Amino acid sequence: MYSSIHFNAKPRAVTNASKPEVLEKLRAIVGADNVLVDPERVEPYGGDAVKEKFPPEAVVFPESTAQMVEILKLANEYLFPVTARGGGVGYTGGAVPIEGGIVVGTDRMNRIVEINADDLYVVCQPGLTTYALQQAVEKYGLLFPPDPASYKDSYIGGNIAENAGGMRTPKYGVTKHSVLGLEVVTATGEVIRTGGRTVKNVVGFDLTGLICGSEGMLGIITEATLKLLPMPEATATVRASFKTMEEACKVLTRFTPEGLLPMAMEVVDRNCIGAIEENFAFGLAADAGAILIVAVDGFRDEVEKNAITIERILKANNGFDILRSKTKDEENKLWDVRRAISPSLMKYGTLKINEDVVVPRSKVPELIRRVEEIGRRHQTFVANFGHAGDGNIHVNFMCDRADADSVARARACVKETFELSVNLGGSISGEHGIGYVKAPYLDIAVDRPTLEVMKAIKKVFDPNGILNPGKMFV
Amino acid sequence: MYSSIHFNAKPRAVTNASKPEVLEKLRAIVGADNVLVDPERVEPYGGDAVKEKFPPEAVVFPESTAQMVEILKLANEYLFPVTARGGGVGYTGGAVPIEGGIVVGTDRMNRIVEINADDLYVVCQPGLTTYALQQAVEKYGLLFPPDPASYKDSYIGGNIAENAGGMRTPKYGVTKHSVLGLEVVTATGEVIRTGGRTVKNVVGFDLTGLICGSEGMLGIITEATLKLLPMPEATATVRASFKTMEEACKVLTRFTPEGLLPMAMEVVDRNCIGAIEENFAFGLAADAGAILIVAVDGFRDEVEKNAITIERILKANNGFDILRSKTKDEENKLWDVRRAISPSLMKYGTLKINEDVVVPRSKVPELIRRVEEIGRRHQTFVANFGHAGDGNIHVNFMCDRADADSVARARACVKETFELSVNLGGSISGEHGIGYVKAPYLDIAVDRPTLEVMKAIKKVFDPNGILNPGKMFV
Repeated sequence: MYSSIHFNAKPRAVTNASKPEVLEKLRAIVGADNVLVDPERVEPYGGDAVKEKFPPEAVVFPESTAQMVEILKLANEYLFPVTARGGGVGYTGGAVPIEGGIVVGTDRMNRIVEINADDLYVVCQPGLTTYALQQAVEKYGLLFPPDPASYKDSYIGGNIAENAGGMRTPKYGVTKHSVLGLEVVTATGEVIRTGGRTVKNVVGFDLTGLICGSEGMLGIITEATLKLLPMPEATATVRASFKTMEEACKVLTRFTPEGLLPMAMEVVDRNCIGAIEENFAFGLAADAGAILIVAVDGFRDEVEKNAITIERILKANNGFDILRSKTKDEENKLWDVRRAISPSLMKYGTLKINEDVVVPRSKVPELIRRVEEIGRRHQTFVANFGHAGDGNIHVNFMCDRADADSVARARACVKETFELSVNLGGSISGEHGIGYVKAPYLDIAVDRPTLEVMKAIKKVFDPNGILNPGKMFV
Repeated sequence: MYSSIHFNAKPRAVTNASKPEVLEKLRAIVGADNVLVDPERVEPYGGDAVKEKFPPEAVVFPESTAQMVEILKLANEYLFPVTARGGGVGYTGGAVPIEGGIVVGTDRMNRIVEINADDLYVVCQPGLTTYALQQAVEKYGLLFPPDPASYKDSYIGGNIAENAGGMRTPKYGVTKHSVLGLEVVTATGEVIRTGGRTVKNVVGFDLTGLICGSEGMLGIITEATLKLLPMPEATATVRASFKTMEEACKVLTRFTPEGLLPMAMEVVDRNCIGAIEENFAFGLAADAGAILIVAVDGFRDEVEKNAITIERILKANNGFDILRSKTKDEENKLWDVRRAISPSLMKYGTLKINEDVVVPRSKVPELIRRVEEIGRRHQTFVANFGHAGDGNIHVNFMCDRADADSVARARACVKETFELSVNLGGSISGEHGIGYVKAPYLDIAVDRPTLEVMKAIKKVFDPNGILNPGKMFV
């Protein structure tokens, strides 16, 4: 049985991928052990964090670029859908085979090819978790900055394909800012090599930029060269409560005149605070309208000095219950509030529709105020938190999975929130992408001529439409 | 008369752009005063830093996106070439109308639309210099980091179209890393809007990334939204000489273990040092094989501390004649050496062929050693300097403009240097782009399937091939 939250789910599709001769050829390419077809074995590869299930007809695990080429050439010959899959933890169904066909899992392509500390890059395959990658380079005193919340489970290939964000964006940018070069197998089975091993590279069109965030619709990433940085010596965090979201967000603009660029600036709204207190009783002030958490990194003495400056700024701008970490342990504790949000919200509904709209950060208070109005109008509980430093807010509409009307009301809220975000100068996704979940809303954010260019580019890479069909464009 | 250094120059082309009815329509679009046709008035718009001249049939100065749309629709109707031009100071002929047609100058589109210090972005038109843009945001305590050497003359539109580099890349990245969104008129006259006002934005394919560095071949940028940072409080520079280039470059890898990420790491080779001493007598050591200049920025006390650390590292790694700036004046003086290079080299030839290859930075010593061998073999003086921190080296082959054999020898050197750079894991351009000058060499760096994708993307944006013909692909 499929749930049907965002989309009218279809039963398991049957395409040419199910033909015995196709399955035989897939087994010949990757080995029989690396082709799954049993319903109970393919089922886990049919969904992601959206929790809808569209089981593929087969799951195939290549171990090399050459095998990936053969798979895609076969798919073009027999015209069946191919959906690439990394950790499978996305929020918009990017790795979900909604039109059937095969899922290509990159799990066996999980090798780190080279860590080059002298030249500050790492070459790796797509199938290892971002956390494993970070751990590996950390041994060399190096930092791979992108840190999506799912980094312990998400694969680096998926993070690149989705151009994943995270908390450290204000200082370090998003995933694409750390990608130097890619090896990609296009939908037709051609191997292309984009960019290179250097930050500077202006040799033909920047296909690296185009592939980052292309959601597996143009090609499948088989190798990535990623930029590394020296690992900062220390981090520190300061947390404060504010009477209102306006006051909390106003503070964000106070760091710039002092020359400060915090690594992370996270905000938690009053509904989240209420939910957290009910569940965890951290002792957060009952009258807090917002909590702001600010983190800095760098050399130890600089970090301490900057954290003290931040503490002073928060205090001077009506922050209260201010806590500044002096040790790693204290810092971890300050982030407990942030980590407690998701579990705390689940008592407000059996389904949390977590959107990730983005607005210029000065618009965050207006966004949240008007999202609360939208929620009231549709009798839907809404709680907001997220990356205030870059205006990327997670808007969570809570509803009852079993109650169609409750789900419909939440969906109405989502649509209005997307329109609101665009009207405030932002967009409908900061870090989750479009997939199939947001595809019906893409034209709210992207105008017709721009969409037409995107569709024409899709045709260049994938003339037969075999890669990840049903996503992005509807 | 045309010179003929890299290319067999053609006489002024005659296309449909010269038809009286076309010129009349262009005048109707932008006003008669904003269409130049007199040979002596269009002549300056026919060249760039390459110093070859390909005068356009007309130069047109639109003042709005709407006028740009009309111009491009007209060009598609009458099928004449259109070449966009900013400051016209490129090194690869990107703004040079080698197949005739019209040049579209963005000089009248030079407005800053919005500086938003709260949200850390600026919206501007393409036709102002990068320097003017930097000065404007500096008044708000903000930094626009990209700093190509030509920043006082190059326009921001050109810098984006070329994805310009500069000295601050090791810390701040290249131009594309500071571009949030673009308004672009495609070759067919459609207005597309890419990206937005926020760092996080994953809504459809990343066309911003594709347009950055596309050299005016896909569309003409009519507005840009650029990321800003807090202006650092201070900078400091440390300079040292080394016996060999190997020793100088080895030091670059010594900063990472200390957690240091300098803003700039520039290197000057022994031939440059010799030339500078002959012309300026700075008192540089006669036996110096290389000079390394390292700059840091940030808070004042942090900058001083880091500069002292760098001084220590340079000393511990065989640096000598070490100088560390304590004031802005001292810092400027330390950079005099770098600024003296280009004028000093001109006594070695009437033509300086300045290439900008890029390699992983640990390969810089090998690159320079082997480039010297190439020069010796072809009896061509070569001097190297540049951005060692990101492996982007300016290789300057000196020859006699009037001596065809001397020019031919230098051109042989260039080709071998490109092949060498690619063999060392790098590429043929770090920051100058391809234009027409490097077009014959593109396939050294980019393989056939990748080139085919680029050409197909060109066709999506420009089915009639009117935008900047004769560039990038040959």
